[in-house]
Amino acid sequence: MPDAKLQSVLSSLSQVARQFDALPSKSTAPDDSYIKLNKNENPFSLPTVVMRSAISALERQYLYPEDDNLSLRDAAANAYGLSRDQVIAGNGSSELLGLIYRAFLAPNDSVAMMSPGFSFNRKLAMLQGARILDIGWSETYSLPMERLLRGPAKDAKFILLANPNNPTGTFVPVADIECLVTQSDRLIVLDEAYVDFAPDNALRLIERHSNLFILRTFSKSYAAAGIRVGFGLGHPEVIGRLRNIQNVFNMNVIGHAIGISILSQCAAYEENHRYIKHERQRVSVALSQLGFSVIPSHANFLLARVPLGRNGSWWLTCLESRKILVAVFPEKGLENCIRVSIGTRSQMDAFVAAVREISRSVMHEHVGC
Amino acid sequence: MPDAKLQSVLSSLSQVARQFDALPSKSTAPDDSYIKLNKNENPFSLPTVVMRSAISALERQYLYPEDDNLSLRDAAANAYGLSRDQVIAGNGSSELLGLIYRAFLAPNDSVAMMSPGFSFNRKLAMLQGARILDIGWSETYSLPMERLLRGPAKDAKFILLANPNNPTGTFVPVADIECLVTQSDRLIVLDEAYVDFAPDNALRLIERHSNLFILRTFSKSYAAAGIRVGFGLGHPEVIGRLRNIQNVFNMNVIGHAIGISILSQCAAYEENHRYIKHERQRVSVALSQLGFSVIPSHANFLLARVPLGRNGSWWLTCLESRKILVAVFPEKGLENCIRVSIGTRSQMDAFVAAVREISRSVMHEHVGC
Repeated sequence: MPDAKLQSVLSSLSQVARQFDALPSKSTAPDDSYIKLNKNENPFSLPTVVMRSAISALERQYLYPEDDNLSLRDAAANAYGLSRDQVIAGNGSSELLGLIYRAFLAPNDSVAMMSPGFSFNRKLAMLQGARILDIGWSETYSLPMERLLRGPAKDAKFILLANPNNPTGTFVPVADIECLVTQSDRLIVLDEAYVDFAPDNALRLIERHSNLFILRTFSKSYAAAGIRVGFGLGHPEVIGRLRNIQNVFNMNVIGHAIGISILSQCAAYEENHRYIKHERQRVSVALSQLGFSVIPSHANFLLARVPLGRNGSWWLTCLESRKILVAVFPEKGLENCIRVSIGTRSQMDAFVAAVREISRSVMHEHVGC
Repeated sequence: MPDAKLQSVLSSLSQVARQFDALPSKSTAPDDSYIKLNKNENPFSLPTVVMRSAISALERQYLYPEDDNLSLRDAAANAYGLSRDQVIAGNGSSELLGLIYRAFLAPNDSVAMMSPGFSFNRKLAMLQGARILDIGWSETYSLPMERLLRGPAKDAKFILLANPNNPTGTFVPVADIECLVTQSDRLIVLDEAYVDFAPDNALRLIERHSNLFILRTFSKSYAAAGIRVGFGLGHPEVIGRLRNIQNVFNMNVIGHAIGISILSQCAAYEENHRYIKHERQRVSVALSQLGFSVIPSHANFLLARVPLGRNGSWWLTCLESRKILVAVFPEKGLENCIRVSIGTRSQMDAFVAAVREISRSVMHEHVGC
C-alpha cells in the first residue's frame, strides 16, 4: 500500500539528497577469526600512558567535551610547530574532508582529484551535487603538472591528492608538491594519512603557502582508527572558516584525551614505524618471488599486481576462503591488483603462506582455489 | 599585505559558506572550581559495568569502528521495541539534527520551529542557506495547531519541536503530538532529549506515523554528554536515506561500547531520574520563595523569571562572580529569565545559597552584587 504521507515527506528532500536511496543495513562484519589486511589498520597497542589518560577521561563522561577542541588543537599546534589557529581537529580526517567539500562545493561545481585515489571522495562530491574531475597519475606516479595547472583543473574549486597515495602507496617528492602549490591558485588539499611511513612530509610548506591544506590522521601510524582523531593544518583564515561550519562537540572526551596523549608520546611509535617499513620490504620481496609485481610503497600497505591468468577479485576470494581479507579496486588499471595492509609478523606470515599455497594450486591448474 | 592567493582560495568557497567568517579561537573554558549549571549536564557516574565495557573497548582502538553502527543500532532497536532499520545512531543527537538539515534543506527553503527552542537550529539552517520560521508557543505552552497546519509552516520542509521543550522545560501531552503528526503531511522532528524526566514519551507513535522522527540523546538522562551518543528513530525509508548521507565511522569504539552498555543498564539510571525530579521540585520551591517565578519543568533544568528590577544577564554575572554558571537567552520574552540545570545536592545548595545572598543584597539596594 503506498503511504501518501511518506511520499510527501520524501518529496521534501533536497534535490541532491533525493539521489541517495535508503541504505540497506549492512551485514555483520567478519569476526575476529579473520586476519584483516584490508583497511590499513595498524595492530599496535596504545602506550600505557595513553591508555591511562583515556581511562581517566572516562570519569569526566558527564561533561560536554571541551568547546572548539582547544586543548587538542593546542597540543597538535605544539607538536607540528604551528599556531592554534592553523589547526582544526576532527572525528577522524574523514570528517574534515567532508567539511572541505561542504565549504567549497555547490551543485555543479567540480573538484580535481589525482586518480586512482581515495574512493570515498566520490561520495563526498555526490553529496554536494558536485563532480570529480579525475586527473590520472603519470606512468611513473609523478604529478602531471600541466594538467593540474592548465587543464579543466583550473576551474576546480580545489585539488585533492594524497601523499603517499592510496591505493598505490607511491610518494611524490615534497619539492613537486611545493611546485604545484606555488604555481596553482587553487586550494591544494594534501592528504598525508600515510606520511609517517614515508621519507618526508610537507608540513614546512604551511607557513609559506596560504593555499595548502594538509590532512593528518591517527588511524594509520598511531594505531587509533577506532578512536577517530584527525587534523587539518592550513592558513588560519581557511581553518577558521571550516571551524565555524563544523558541528559542535564533534569529538568525544576519549578522542580528546587519546589525541593529546599520543601527541606527547610520538617517540613511542617510532619502533612501530620502523617495524612496518621493514615488514613491508620483507612481504614485498616474498610477493615478488611468487610472481607478483609490487609497486614500491611508502605507506603501511602494498599494491601488488597478481600473476597473469587471474584477476584481483579472484585472489581476494581465494584469500577470504582462507580467512584473510585484502582489498581490491574497481578502477580501470587496478582490476589485476590486490592491496594488502602490513600487520603483525604472524599475520604477514599467514598471508604469504596463503599466497604461496594459492600460487601452487594455480600452477597445478586447479580451477578453484 | 593582501595575499592574492588566499583571496583566490576564499573566492572558491560556496555562496552559503562565504557567510561564515573565520571563527576566532574561543577562550579557555571555566576551570573545575566553577559549579556548572549552564549546560544541563547530569553529574552522575557511569555504572561500573558500563565503565568496564568502555575500558575493554579501548583495547580494540586500532580497528575501525563497526560499519554502519550495526550492534549499537540493534541494541537501541531492542531497547525501544523497534527494528534495526528504524534506528540511526549519531555522534550525539546534534549530528543527527545536522543530517536532517542537510537532507531536507536547500538554499531559500524554510523549516518551522517552535520558539523559543534550541538555538543551535538557527546555525544549522544558516549552514543550508535556509531560514527558520519561528512559531511561538501559546501562552500556556501548548501547540498552536492552526499555525502549524495552515500558516506558512505548511510549506516548511519539516517542523521541529522539542518535548520537553528547551529552554522552557514545558511538556506537551503526547496526544497533542499525535494530533499534529496525524494532521500534518510534513516530517515532524521531535527532539526528546529530556524525555526521561517527563511523564510520557512519543515512542509508541513511530509505528503508526511515517512522518514522525524522534531524536534521543544519552547526554542528559544517561549522563554521557562527553561520550556523544544519540539516536534518531523513524520510518526505515527516512532513516535509510539519512544513513546513506551520514559520514563513515561517525562514532568511535568507546561511543559504541558505552552506548550498548547503557542500553542494557537503563534500570540503573532510574534512581538518578527520581533524584533529579525530586531535586528539581526542591529548587523550584526555594526559588519561588525568593521571588522567582518558575515555569513547571519536566526536564533536568528550571527556567525561572527573576524578581522585578534586574534582568537575567545581571543575575548570570552575579552568580558567575560566585563561581556558579547558569544560562540566559537573548530571545524576546526571555531577557528576564535564567535557566539552571539540576546538579548534585551540594551544587544546588550552593546555588540556592548564592541566590539568597544576592537577593538580600538587592533588597538592601546594593548596586553591585
